[in-house]
Amino acid sequence: MANTLGKNFKITTFGESHGKCVGVIIEGCPAGLKLDLNEIQKEVNKRKPGQSALTTQRKEQDRVEVLSGSLNGVTTGAPICLMVFNKDIDSSKYEVIKRLPRPGHSDMPAFFKYHGSNDWRGGGIFSGRLTLSYVMAGVVAKEILKKSNIEILAQTIQIGKIKAREMPVEEIRENKEKTLVRCADLTAAEKMEELILEVKEQGDSVGGIIECLALNVPVGFGEPICDSLESELSKAIFSIPAIKGIEFGLGFKMVELKGSKNNDEFSLEREKIITKTNNCGGILGGIFNGMPIVFRVVIKSTSSISLPQETINLETKSKEILKTEGRHDPCIVSRAVPVVESITAVVLADLGMQGGFIT
Amino acid sequence: MANTLGKNFKITTFGESHGKCVGVIIEGCPAGLKLDLNEIQKEVNKRKPGQSALTTQRKEQDRVEVLSGSLNGVTTGAPICLMVFNKDIDSSKYEVIKRLPRPGHSDMPAFFKYHGSNDWRGGGIFSGRLTLSYVMAGVVAKEILKKSNIEILAQTIQIGKIKAREMPVEEIRENKEKTLVRCADLTAAEKMEELILEVKEQGDSVGGIIECLALNVPVGFGEPICDSLESELSKAIFSIPAIKGIEFGLGFKMVELKGSKNNDEFSLEREKIITKTNNCGGILGGIFNGMPIVFRVVIKSTSSISLPQETINLETKSKEILKTEGRHDPCIVSRAVPVVESITAVVLADLGMQGGFIT
Amino acid sequence: MANTLGKNFKITTFGESHGKCVGVIIEGCPAGLKLDLNEIQKEVNKRKPGQSALTTQRKEQDRVEVLSGSLNGVTTGAPICLMVFNKDIDSSKYEVIKRLPRPGHSDMPAFFKYHGSNDWRGGGIFSGRLTLSYVMAGVVAKEILKKSNIEILAQTIQIGKIKAREMPVEEIRENKEKTLVRCADLTAAEKMEELILEVKEQGDSVGGIIECLALNVPVGFGEPICDSLESELSKAIFSIPAIKGIEFGLGFKMVELKGSKNNDEFSLEREKIITKTNNCGGILGGIFNGMPIVFRVVIKSTSSISLPQETINLETKSKEILKTEGRHDPCIVSRAVPVVESITAVVLADLGMQGGFIT
Amino acid sequence: MANTLGKNFKITTFGESHGKCVGVIIEGCPAGLKLDLNEIQKEVNKRKPGQSALTTQRKEQDRVEVLSGSLNGVTTGAPICLMVFNKDIDSSKYEVIKRLPRPGHSDMPAFFKYHGSNDWRGGGIFSGRLTLSYVMAGVVAKEILKKSNIEILAQTIQIGKIKAREMPVEEIRENKEKTLVRCADLTAAEKMEELILEVKEQGDSVGGIIECLALNVPVGFGEPICDSLESELSKAIFSIPAIKGIEFGLGFKMVELKGSKNNDEFSLEREKIITKTNNCGGILGGIFNGMPIVFRVVIKSTSSISLPQETINLETKSKEILKTEGRHDPCIVSRAVPVVESITAVVLADLGMQGGFIT
Repeated sequence: MANTLGKNFKITTFGESHGKCVGVIIEGCPAGLKLDLNEIQKEVNKRKPGQSALTTQRKEQDRVEVLSGSLNGVTTGAPICLMVFNKDIDSSKYEVIKRLPRPGHSDMPAFFKYHGSNDWRGGGIFSGRLTLSYVMAGVVAKEILKKSNIEILAQTIQIGKIKAREMPVEEIRENKEKTLVRCADLTAAEKMEELILEVKEQGDSVGGIIECLALNVPVGFGEPICDSLESELSKAIFSIPAIKGIEFGLGFKMVELKGSKNNDEFSLEREKIITKTNNCGGILGGIFNGMPIVFRVVIKSTSSISLPQETINLETKSKEILKTEGRHDPCIVSRAVPVVESITAVVLADLGMQGGFIT
Repeated sequence: MANTLGKNFKITTFGESHGKCVGVIIEGCPAGLKLDLNEIQKEVNKRKPGQSALTTQRKEQDRVEVLSGSLNGVTTGAPICLMVFNKDIDSSKYEVIKRLPRPGHSDMPAFFKYHGSNDWRGGGIFSGRLTLSYVMAGVVAKEILKKSNIEILAQTIQIGKIKAREMPVEEIRENKEKTLVRCADLTAAEKMEELILEVKEQGDSVGGIIECLALNVPVGFGEPICDSLESELSKAIFSIPAIKGIEFGLGFKMVELKGSKNNDEFSLEREKIITKTNNCGGILGGIFNGMPIVFRVVIKSTSSISLPQETINLETKSKEILKTEGRHDPCIVSRAVPVVESITAVVLADLGMQGGFIT
Repeated sequence: MANTLGKNFKITTFGESHGKCVGVIIEGCPAGLKLDLNEIQKEVNKRKPGQSALTTQRKEQDRVEVLSGSLNGVTTGAPICLMVFNKDIDSSKYEVIKRLPRPGHSDMPAFFKYHGSNDWRGGGIFSGRLTLSYVMAGVVAKEILKKSNIEILAQTIQIGKIKAREMPVEEIRENKEKTLVRCADLTAAEKMEELILEVKEQGDSVGGIIECLALNVPVGFGEPICDSLESELSKAIFSIPAIKGIEFGLGFKMVELKGSKNNDEFSLEREKIITKTNNCGGILGGIFNGMPIVFRVVIKSTSSISLPQETINLETKSKEILKTEGRHDPCIVSRAVPVVESITAVVLADLGMQGGFIT
Repeated sequence: MANTLGKNFKITTFGESHGKCVGVIIEGCPAGLKLDLNEIQKEVNKRKPGQSALTTQRKEQDRVEVLSGSLNGVTTGAPICLMVFNKDIDSSKYEVIKRLPRPGHSDMPAFFKYHGSNDWRGGGIFSGRLTLSYVMAGVVAKEILKKSNIEILAQTIQIGKIKAREMPVEEIRENKEKTLVRCADLTAAEKMEELILEVKEQGDSVGGIIECLALNVPVGFGEPICDSLESELSKAIFSIPAIKGIEFGLGFKMVELKGSKNNDEFSLEREKIITKTNNCGGILGGIFNGMPIVFRVVIKSTSSISLPQETINLETKSKEILKTEGRHDPCIVSRAVPVVESITAVVLADLGMQGGFIT
């Protein structure tokens, strides 16, 4: 089983890339919350295909419908069902992958796991299209977090070898939606776009790194040990296809820092205990220390490329050359930014409701 | 809440660093499995404190007791309770942290979360001592995996800036327990030991990277999306204190590889479909492709150091200098190796039982 | 939270009586299972409103749609979404219950629980209409059980004071769908129908008792203690509105039997250990002993009646007389029979998958 | 799997009748709660064996130990481990049941479920002795409920055919602990005791009915549908061995009442909406209406009797006559009263913490 996140604020996703729909059930949302369809649609549009030359040319309106849990634009306390019906489906290009599994994709293990009965069309449940459900749920979660003044802010900080410079929060908030790659460093963003168009031209693809911040999370928020923020966030984040690594605070860089440099010393700021640095990314012992949460995820280069690749025919067990067709993103990173934000919101809403920080 | 991992093979941990005991309840273990106390003890001894000059001088026998779930050395299908009673407790050195939270530790957020009622002695539930419960459970999980011929193999591959060279599996299996740092590259291991003694001398600490392999996991094993291997493993792995990052396969290095280089092309080997490279670390779409699982985790330098650090007195809200006493590891990495192996075994046993691979 | 049943075979329900739809998500259904829409529709029709003079006059086609989890009529291993869109909605008669809670209904506590934001139309999520989701899921569960030859058989055995006589299984199977009240005792069934029409005439309502059997469940099936069959079944059964009691085997009658009469002695039948009586209803220690499972549930008389009743105006806090309008069943028992069967199938499919009896 | 109840306030039980111990882990208990070992011991003593001539002669001190989760008599927010070590174990009398399953006990299905590896000594995990863990957890739950002024009150209302008369709450509270059978009707209690001694003399056993009340539960408390109070309570209650039926409010008697009689009309009492009757047992739509919760459970006559019974030898598959030895209760009802109270407290604490009624 595989499609549920959370405990007190819980989401269950369903649908397929080329099936009838993609949807999400949200359980545990408090009654009396504003459920603004326009707000959901606006957020969904950020990850919509066909936005620009940088993304896949699949044209989906991705029109969100609220099927349950809301009355007169306000939540009722009942399960909320949000759904998008798929429109622009063209599975013809995918017929080939029933026999020829695509390198980098789940086609091969899925074929064996489901004894050939899996929905292969467009990758079925393994498609990035299913992250649409996280974005829909994320808007509801953000509405809950807003009551506690918690803000989540993700941006692209690296595409291929091109890195954004470090920036203050205000600049990130201000600039990140201005660029197609969702990077607030406008100079780097331009180079990233060029790189993406270049690899697209080559029939190739490229990956990147997203950094996510959560601001104003109160000290003591979260649960320790097995439900630690790192545990819960990473579990949710790895539900997003193509993510292969996550690190909190300084992350892998910590290996080169001695304890005396890595430990964040305490200090006072307007009567509040803060840390002078934030190497730990806002998390000590799995719970929040009141500083901004900081984590980064790496997204692999899109597995679907037009260049020829070697594969094995599942029926004949013979070697074949595959040239993946269908419509693909040369780089999925910019569309993943709202997904990372959304799923972070879902996790924080859930942890907040568990701990009594949010009621 | 915070102390449960797994669904079909489920563990619940309890106990405190300076409380009466550290224990674990294992639910869902099949009846009729050999439960060898010596085997558990042997594994527990690998993470025992006081093993060498490289580790803390706390002297604990860590004698494991089986309190339930076993009859005549065989599991009965009932919940298994494994426990170690704490013996060498000296909380006197910790009195100070009730007021003066240690940088890098959970003392500060835990104080606020639990309104001052948390067990502060030796870090309470946040102590690395609780990973003892994972090791005990891991032996049972490994016994289950053994029936499917699945092997888990972790080793230290970096301490500070000292890196081990890449090695074939056979060499890792053969050598890793020969060195105090649990690194199979004997030359690197020697330098790592020197470094650890050096930082210990300085009253400082150092971190490292552990790489973990899982071998012979059958293709199709695992669950997609929210229960993906990356999701389940990372959730479990971050239950280990001091881990701040995880990456699968090439992980963060993927950002510099185009799709055509990163995708693992398929090939045939003795009638079996394999991949020519293993950049994805054995996982496609969250499920196993039959290649070895590969992941790495970064462990921060031990937060407890003897060097003076700035902190804030929780009662007086004034700045103070803290010199942490108590008995500490200058580097926790070698003792974390069996913990990473164990928790990986727990996750795989659970996923295997969910998917019907293990019955 | 409130809308999920099961662990390995898991259902999540959503929708409202007068909302857009009623639906269910099924997680954990094996791939490769036949998903016959006609079969689902046939079963759904058994609980459809407007079937006869005995039931509510609400006219719903209850046309089932499969929105995910199936390809070419076969399950894919992905979450299955089954949905019915509501058509014949007339909420006008319910406006009054926003202020005047109906005795016997959840209107009053729901108003307080959800601070007035609950969906009051037709009872919202508390309506019996939501049991439609159990029936849809039940067909899938029955398909799974069929592979193990497990059969579930429920019938009405009492309406008001009219009781059916005891009958052999064959007769129940043969006759129960022949009568409008779903009672296999044709003589009693006739009297039950008369009684229902009589109370309908009076603007009143009547309740009944349903008995459910599960046949061919293998010995050892089920889990002990907290997940005992009695625990899991009763949890699921009480998710059906209007059920106020459940008993297994002889149930409450056991109080008058001494142990020597109540214990089921063992015997041999064709090399198989059976019990000479089945007072325990097929369950010993929460797990199956190989005999038929037998349980009974009591369904209260429909709370919606046309007769005037005293209530309190939620706004003015003054006493008022309420005459419930809307379209109601004078007796809901016959329509609950397929619901009890379905939810029993869901529970057994889940327990069977947990225990490895069904894979 | 089988040993966990609850979600936010969660208990996990372990141990065996003749194993080393019986214990419980409590997760989710708030920090800062008084944990009074004397209070726990006092409650545990109520279900202790060997209390009087009416109960088994097994002599257990049942001395409770707090192994984790508490510091200076106050909860720390960490998992609480409460344990009793078994002392008076005599498994010799049980050797026979390895081959000869006892009628009415789980011996037979357990043997097949666990392929002969189950702990047969004294019934292993199926023994009523494991309810000791519910009683220990119940004291913690009651301490939580006390903050919201919620009181739980159970008593024996029937043994064999002897019924207690209906009584006001005050009288129940005052009298129920005065009699060995825990029945507040002192006249009936005397007859019940006589009956129990009589069946004991005969080597036989007798069952009974317990009624449980929960007082001062606020309106709106609880969750609807699948987590309804009836669902959650019945799931928990059936975790107690020997219970074969549960009914809420009028329960099975409802079948003879028309809606106009069964519906509880609303009324006002000191500005609060109440119902004039309480046929629904305080629960409408699965959530609380502010009236007392009322439910009854039937407990079968103890399966262990001294009279000879027919059974089948599991090894030889031949018929044999079994005379159960060991030490047994001729009637378990009085000892089950604190168990029913405790598990009800556990369920209410959990539901209250889910709904934000208790924090």
